[in-house]
Amino acid sequence: MRKVAIIGIGQTPVAEHWEKSLLLLAGEAVFAALSDANTPTVDALYVGNMLSGLLERQEHIGAWIADWVGLRGIEAFKVEAACASGAAAFRMGVMAVASGEINSAVVMGAEKMTDSHPDDTTAALATAADADYEVIHGLSFISLNALIMRRYLHEYGWQHADFAPFSINSHTNALSNPNARLHIPLNKEKYIKAPMVSDPINLMDSSAIGDGAAAVVIVPAEMLRGQQPIISVIGSGAATDTLAVHDRREPLWLSAAEKSAKQAYRQAGVGPKDLDLFELHDAFSIMAALSLEASGFAERGQGPRLGLEGEILIGGRIPITTRGGLKARGHPVGATGMYQIVEVVQQLRGQADGTQVAGAKIGMAQNIGGSGATILTHILESS
Amino acid sequence: MRKVAIIGIGQTPVAEHWEKSLLLLAGEAVFAALSDANTPTVDALYVGNMLSGLLERQEHIGAWIADWVGLRGIEAFKVEAACASGAAAFRMGVMAVASGEINSAVVMGAEKMTDSHPDDTTAALATAADADYEVIHGLSFISLNALIMRRYLHEYGWQHADFAPFSINSHTNALSNPNARLHIPLNKEKYIKAPMVSDPINLMDSSAIGDGAAAVVIVPAEMLRGQQPIISVIGSGAATDTLAVHDRREPLWLSAAEKSAKQAYRQAGVGPKDLDLFELHDAFSIMAALSLEASGFAERGQGPRLGLEGEILIGGRIPITTRGGLKARGHPVGATGMYQIVEVVQQLRGQADGTQVAGAKIGMAQNIGGSGATILTHILESS
Repeated sequence: MRKVAIIGIGQTPVAEHWEKSLLLLAGEAVFAALSDANTPTVDALYVGNMLSGLLERQEHIGAWIADWVGLRGIEAFKVEAACASGAAAFRMGVMAVASGEINSAVVMGAEKMTDSHPDDTTAALATAADADYEVIHGLSFISLNALIMRRYLHEYGWQHADFAPFSINSHTNALSNPNARLHIPLNKEKYIKAPMVSDPINLMDSSAIGDGAAAVVIVPAEMLRGQQPIISVIGSGAATDTLAVHDRREPLWLSAAEKSAKQAYRQAGVGPKDLDLFELHDAFSIMAALSLEASGFAERGQGPRLGLEGEILIGGRIPITTRGGLKARGHPVGATGMYQIVEVVQQLRGQADGTQVAGAKIGMAQNIGGSGATILTHILESS
Repeated sequence: MRKVAIIGIGQTPVAEHWEKSLLLLAGEAVFAALSDANTPTVDALYVGNMLSGLLERQEHIGAWIADWVGLRGIEAFKVEAACASGAAAFRMGVMAVASGEINSAVVMGAEKMTDSHPDDTTAALATAADADYEVIHGLSFISLNALIMRRYLHEYGWQHADFAPFSINSHTNALSNPNARLHIPLNKEKYIKAPMVSDPINLMDSSAIGDGAAAVVIVPAEMLRGQQPIISVIGSGAATDTLAVHDRREPLWLSAAEKSAKQAYRQAGVGPKDLDLFELHDAFSIMAALSLEASGFAERGQGPRLGLEGEILIGGRIPITTRGGLKARGHPVGATGMYQIVEVVQQLRGQADGTQVAGAKIGMAQNIGGSGATILTHILESS
């Protein structure tokens, strides 16, 4: 299998882009990535996206975007795995280049969420959950996560306030990311007093949706022989679980995170202690804790401890959400996984102004679809 | 790149499955394919599907199906490229296995279309066309194809009746396919007198939508050393064009079919004259003609001649739609590309009862998304 390298990155700010369509946003990210890679063209385009059919009445967006960015004719598809669509597209792209069939590709995520009625957006997001066994009972995405968080507090004896460090860290890191959705300092008092959304999840536990697109250009690493540093994909893992949370034997354990992380660690020949940073999927603060546990950074039920002890900060043992995470960089669902990859590359290049992890060499990204039903983990290395 | 072999196939009948959900249909095809392959499990599941979000309010169907078929935990995604979603998923699966990352996969297409209001289905299908430049003017999928056919008749001087052989051939072949949607003999008189749908396309130019699922199990061919015959993928090509037909310099030429077929021919080291059969995408009879031309079987504007001269029949120079094609086997859109692959395998195994092409060794499948904006071509060989 050929090793795959990332030679270009691009992103739009995550925002309410009222004046820009999904196509314009996608184009901006692709143009930026191609320009950064100093290449005018690629063989293929793979797009992670979840909601274009439901919210834009536009499917078939692979060919649509390829034409728009001046790459009419190249192979192009959409890959969908709910909020993990971005990383799913990335893994598909990596395998396509690794196979030898494709010599260069743009892999991107793009999502337009704020131009629809909020009820429509909430209903569209709920298509990531089980329509027959969850959504039919009136459960939304946030209420599913609230059930998980409530049970977690009960089971392990934590207080809601113990999750504050996750959200505060994301908001703090976002302050120096010009592409972040929220530039709002957060402290413990503001966290605790935030309006309740779905008990026990309040507004400051919840990520902000948004519009945005992020893209990378990938090629076989062997093409770059002699150059350095090369940023390459050294681990890639993907796994699934039941869509419906109630079908899981252990609803507080992200088994797909554990499986995909182990797969990525094995491939990369590294473990949690070797990582310089971890872009995790803090769609809700509870997910940050569960992700840290399943990925081997904390014992079961002990995720919040890493926040309380400052280990997740820049300079801590395992800095997370270094550019703001889903909480504050924002969560344009199908694009989020690609924002994570772009941000890990920024760190490995030393371009994470304001929140640079000193000497970062190995970084991990983990993208979660649904309430944990699809999880992908990628490890990148600069060498 | 590792060569990829198909070791199992499965399909449901294409029908109005009022009593079966998308999930049940998907399961039937997967169980049949796993059973045929004599394997209880695989590493990954890739699903081609277009409409699950719009018509079933269920996205995230990769994990959903994986769990249902007893493969909870394995990697699983959905791939979407409008009506070419099936072949797009197949190509992704082939590259995943070819890369060495995946050692066995189920690739499938699944679609449930008849359980919705017909207006909803028509509107959902229109998301394959350009929302901003085609659909907004009231164009549906069939009216776009009608514009193309009208222009073709004008440009090349054919009569509508000259397309009768395509539809008659598909209906005739479907008579001996138990999984076909329509078992209705067709003759020239019935073809000509069929009710008009969108002038000049009448009901007998049009494929039948339907519910259905088709699946294959793929593995590296090297795993089968010593066995024979082995059915392997010797050519795979994918290309795109503009979504909007009016943006094409030559609206009567399927440039993505030409590109993807050339790519597949080059990889396979074969040409049109080496093929024993061709499962083409006769969503409308005009598409059969355009596909034959762009794939090198007829001169520009001369596709209908192959029908009129009987070359497309079983025993002719290039038998097409040997199990009924989209016209009569039916067109469950995101599943169609996988039905084509399954049917080519049936021919290469000598299992195409009633329409077996004698001694078939090499067969091709071509799957078209939108009005030609995404086209994939695959060549399979028995050796």
